[in-house]
Amino acid sequence: MKHLLSTADLSRADAIGILDVAEEMAEVNTREVKRLPALRGKTIVNLFFEDSTRTRISFEAAAKRLSADVINFAAKGSSVSKGESLKDTVQTLGAMGIDGIVMRHGASGAPRVLADADWIDVPVVNAGDGTHEHPTQALLDAFTMRRRLHGAASRGKGLDGVRVAIVGDVLHSRVARSNAWLLATLGAEVTFVAPPTLLPAVDRPFGAAVHHDLDVALAEDPDVVMLLRIQQERMHDAFFPNEREYTRHFGLTAARAAGLSERTLIMHPGPMNRGLEIAGVAADDPRSTVVEQVANGVSVRMAVLYLALTGSAPATSVAQPAAAPTKEPVA
Amino acid sequence: MKHLLSTADLSRADAIGILDVAEEMAEVNTREVKRLPALRGKTIVNLFFEDSTRTRISFEAAAKRLSADVINFAAKGSSVSKGESLKDTVQTLGAMGIDGIVMRHGASGAPRVLADADWIDVPVVNAGDGTHEHPTQALLDAFTMRRRLHGAASRGKGLDGVRVAIVGDVLHSRVARSNAWLLATLGAEVTFVAPPTLLPAVDRPFGAAVHHDLDVALAEDPDVVMLLRIQQERMHDAFFPNEREYTRHFGLTAARAAGLSERTLIMHPGPMNRGLEIAGVAADDPRSTVVEQVANGVSVRMAVLYLALTGSAPATSVAQPAAAPTKEPVA
Amino acid sequence: MKHLLSTADLSRADAIGILDVAEEMAEVNTREVKRLPALRGKTIVNLFFEDSTRTRISFEAAAKRLSADVINFAAKGSSVSKGESLKDTVQTLGAMGIDGIVMRHGASGAPRVLADADWIDVPVVNAGDGTHEHPTQALLDAFTMRRRLHGAASRGKGLDGVRVAIVGDVLHSRVARSNAWLLATLGAEVTFVAPPTLLPAVDRPFGAAVHHDLDVALAEDPDVVMLLRIQQERMHDAFFPNEREYTRHFGLTAARAAGLSERTLIMHPGPMNRGLEIAGVAADDPRSTVVEQVANGVSVRMAVLYLALTGSAPATSVAQPAAAPTKEPVA
Repeated sequence: MKHLLSTADLSRADAIGILDVAEEMAEVNTREVKRLPALRGKTIVNLFFEDSTRTRISFEAAAKRLSADVINFAAKGSSVSKGESLKDTVQTLGAMGIDGIVMRHGASGAPRVLADADWIDVPVVNAGDGTHEHPTQALLDAFTMRRRLHGAASRGKGLDGVRVAIVGDVLHSRVARSNAWLLATLGAEVTFVAPPTLLPAVDRPFGAAVHHDLDVALAEDPDVVMLLRIQQERMHDAFFPNEREYTRHFGLTAARAAGLSERTLIMHPGPMNRGLEIAGVAADDPRSTVVEQVANGVSVRMAVLYLALTGSAPATSVAQPAAAPTKEPVA
Repeated sequence: MKHLLSTADLSRADAIGILDVAEEMAEVNTREVKRLPALRGKTIVNLFFEDSTRTRISFEAAAKRLSADVINFAAKGSSVSKGESLKDTVQTLGAMGIDGIVMRHGASGAPRVLADADWIDVPVVNAGDGTHEHPTQALLDAFTMRRRLHGAASRGKGLDGVRVAIVGDVLHSRVARSNAWLLATLGAEVTFVAPPTLLPAVDRPFGAAVHHDLDVALAEDPDVVMLLRIQQERMHDAFFPNEREYTRHFGLTAARAAGLSERTLIMHPGPMNRGLEIAGVAADDPRSTVVEQVANGVSVRMAVLYLALTGSAPATSVAQPAAAPTKEPVA
Repeated sequence: MKHLLSTADLSRADAIGILDVAEEMAEVNTREVKRLPALRGKTIVNLFFEDSTRTRISFEAAAKRLSADVINFAAKGSSVSKGESLKDTVQTLGAMGIDGIVMRHGASGAPRVLADADWIDVPVVNAGDGTHEHPTQALLDAFTMRRRLHGAASRGKGLDGVRVAIVGDVLHSRVARSNAWLLATLGAEVTFVAPPTLLPAVDRPFGAAVHHDLDVALAEDPDVVMLLRIQQERMHDAFFPNEREYTRHFGLTAARAAGLSERTLIMHPGPMNRGLEIAGVAADDPRSTVVEQVANGVSVRMAVLYLALTGSAPATSVAQPAAAPTKEPVA
């Protein structure tokens, strides 16, 4: 794997391969010393044109556990804010001999532009671009579902037949889009649950089914209910007069959570608006995977950085790096 | 030791134990290569809800000398500023598998809330909370006094009978409070010197004696005079018409410094307002420990991080970790 | 070498010695694992009173490749912004036991003040001070010229007889000044090309010749044309009515670039204003060294940090550190 730009680029074998490497990383993360020498002497730049402390820290922790050096580059206050082009910023980083870029950008497609251009020849990992994609979020969501559903027998498995309801502001959500594509690739059935004002105006957006009524959707007993974060300003764009109305229609309230099956997973990419799109008791319920998702995020990002920076095929085990091996033993 | 939240939690044996480990760390800090492998593979997050470059850098240097990875989390621009609760922020960090939190917060008691909650199960070190406590500052102050008074014979000793005058804005000072408790535990006698407007309206605040006249207090020949930083806005709250009036009553002027005994220590937690609460010549006097306090701060913070993250009792020597030993030899 | 404050302090032997060590570092930077143990256990502080992400990242990458720990200290939001003096800030850092300071400051001469004072006894590397100097930029520029002109046979060589035209806002450029001194020391002949309003009002500024007409200067067939970044506000100070007029007179337009000899180097310290002082096609031309300059910047900064922190003479090879040797083998 060279870049990770979109979950739409991943074959089923690729996706399962990444999740399997992430299982090995999760094992490392249970050790007393959570550290592999795999990327020693490599430098990864967190190139963040938008603030996202949560995602930045997850990638930073992942890189450091692989022994890479991490340089944080926040575009604010940099020459970017003085009007330097993306091309020149990136060529500058490339010239410094860095080995990989984790990029967060407000403009949809920016990581693809970077990966396709001949400005720099290092792996690019998309850490969220505009309202477009957030592929490592989708991978950690899939990883979390697979672990909860298959436990120790997860390796090699997809998510065939798993029914996932994704609820809320699908229109502006990079998480919804990346998940819809990845989950379909893994064999899951995705339904978006949202008002028409918060959905793309097409028939099957990103290949998913659509429901406008949350209670009807929940009555179909999905295996997973994933709530999306709603931004204040979007709520009003979507003609909800206030937060209470949004919650009444599209929030996972305590009552709705109580009505879910024992084995239905409750997911949220965070940060949560407790009491708005998700009730506090639902977030803290044993069925909720909110905290596991964060933990799994580090393992999945370790897998992605490892595969991208060593140029290994997604099927590669950490114990046997295939291409561009490092000098040290890896496990 | 699990957490370090307040000096009021420390027994005399605990406090002396921490200072003794700090003596070992101070020895490491005189070496050509100032680095122990004790916390290799551990990740410490500096969770700073308030700016404090000076304290953050001291903790960062301490953690790196113990070979820990450090992630800086400034709440500004993070999801915290988007209204995420402390609980969710901290659960997120915990899920990422971090091993310890150094927390600075504007609200008094925030680190205690964090340590008491079941959101996360890692050590919490209080790096200053509101006007409440700053325990590592008090420990480094005590360490500095002990070293100046007992030299190479410091280990195992307290500060019995040492008379300490703490001068200035006691009311709003976390340093005054943490020091008062710790110094009393170590056997010192503390007197606060301040106008009534800058003192808690109780009889013996934090167990200390009170003086309202600095010249009378200095005439009693204290062993230590510690000046507190005065904030501009506090000075006016306290009915001082201008800076000169504050200095005239409560500043350690050149004249007052000249009147002190040869062996009286002059201390300040920094950053100093030179010419306001302390004259430049007093700050630079051989009796001043201002620079030593900073140096000792790194040693004390190494000791605290070491004890908290290895779960060792404060009496533990670095050479023989008791509980939760790391895999490598430590010295 | 202890400090690096100004290129005017460097003898020819010093300058060539630094460039030769940088050649060794450039070799390290071609390796799979770009890392030397030379500064393991050392802490370098990037003390930046001005934002400069590009320079900060270059120094950070350089320090990490030498295995040093790096602490970033941005003066914004620190006690500096609360009025702490440079002296107290620096004494604080010194007391923490740091081993070197890389300093960027808006005031010309600030790094010299720091190096001359007895506040701290560690090497100071000037990373740009006001409109005064930027010595590592000049060293990387000289390194780039030497490599392009002499290739593998660069070591031990100067730049004798090389004719360099430096074009643009010489008056406010620390790059122009540092380059003029260093290039003259290395035997090059420097000509500034600028309007009188953007030149110091002296006869031979910094020892260089002066031209006011770019086309005349280019007709003399220089070996190197170096464009300086022009700030919007300076352009208007210099009585250019608009950007187009500036470009027409002092920009390296596509037409001017086409008229240059095959072997003329096109240089720019970055960040570039494409289309203003340099046309995009000129920046991307094979004769342009813009990207190489950035790459060489890391090698040169590794050399400077190595020599300063080990206290070695500039002639020292990395393989045989002379003074203050570290405990580990270096190569």
